[in-house]
Amino acid sequence: MFSDRFDQLVQALRILPSVGPKSAQRMALHLIMKNREGANALSVALSEATSYIHQCQICNSLTEDEVCEICLSTERDSALLCVVESPADVLAIEHSGSFRGKYHVLGGHLSPLDGVGPEEIGIPYLVQRLTDQQIKEVILATNATVEGQATAHYLVEVTKHLPLQMTRIAQGVPQGGELEYVDSHTLSQAVHNRLTMK
Amino acid sequence: MFSDRFDQLVQALRILPSVGPKSAQRMALHLIMKNREGANALSVALSEATSYIHQCQICNSLTEDEVCEICLSTERDSALLCVVESPADVLAIEHSGSFRGKYHVLGGHLSPLDGVGPEEIGIPYLVQRLTDQQIKEVILATNATVEGQATAHYLVEVTKHLPLQMTRIAQGVPQGGELEYVDSHTLSQAVHNRLTMK
Repeated sequence: MFSDRFDQLVQALRILPSVGPKSAQRMALHLIMKNREGANALSVALSEATSYIHQCQICNSLTEDEVCEICLSTERDSALLCVVESPADVLAIEHSGSFRGKYHVLGGHLSPLDGVGPEEIGIPYLVQRLTDQQIKEVILATNATVEGQATAHYLVEVTKHLPLQMTRIAQGVPQGGELEYVDSHTLSQAVHNRLTMK
Repeated sequence: MFSDRFDQLVQALRILPSVGPKSAQRMALHLIMKNREGANALSVALSEATSYIHQCQICNSLTEDEVCEICLSTERDSALLCVVESPADVLAIEHSGSFRGKYHVLGGHLSPLDGVGPEEIGIPYLVQRLTDQQIKEVILATNATVEGQATAHYLVEVTKHLPLQMTRIAQGVPQGGELEYVDSHTLSQAVHNRLTMK
């Protein structure tokens, strides 16, 4: 509207998740009118991030080096491997502080209708990794969605011949969850997998 | 978390309006994992926008040239001037297609407590503009907030000596507004400024 470069900026901002035309325009005006320094810093951060951040050669998570810090760590239990769909899940599990093993990032889930088969999410490489390394337990931490469940089940199938313990993260009522508002599938899982308290 | 540059990107994204730590992380992961091309395009668009977009020398709106297209236009009525708070308001009024005159962007509103007086929003320059140019009507289109109203009233005061018609955009019930949910001040204005239908 004001100029071609303004329109280009609004257009470019729309690639951000959940940013529509109105938000993009508000962001562009905010940057141009109130925070040019921040806009320049963001420009540099974006170009540096795309140049230097890539996937870890071992676990597929993100790093600036060949191998990420978690894979290199000697303080973490290499016999315990947590399989997740995306690097965001690594962040979430790390944030929970509940896991001290290593990770494997699939980079998606099985979705035959979208043409995503085992090859596309690197399952042969994961099976290779499980065969070569001294791993005792694999925690399947794919999402609790239909696709995530299917991916977990597929992984159990293709690793049947390996001397591994395969576990799946628990499904149940979330912290603070009121039973009244929890969906019936979750509740049925929670009842089925009930724990002995005494 | 993954690397310093990843953290820097998350930090840089937080300057965007209504983007908190969680959204910034989601945006960073989306850009790095799924749209590096878009991230680079955004980086270029940001740096070009901050380098080339600046304020119009006449109306203070945004342009890449010395004077913006609206100020240069010979098809618009130069005798009609619409005073707004920000370039976003120019976009909104242009989008409504209801105005074919020229604009003046104040760049804010009077707010004595924040140290924003008439000088800070260029009111002396606006008065000069009104004195020098052949303007017949000034439409005060500052926001319908306390500060916007105060700014409009102040402008009426300081232009008393000029042979100008000063008008204020109407306040009333918005399109689709249900009376039940319209605040009482707006409703009182709407009743007070009622229009004859026949």
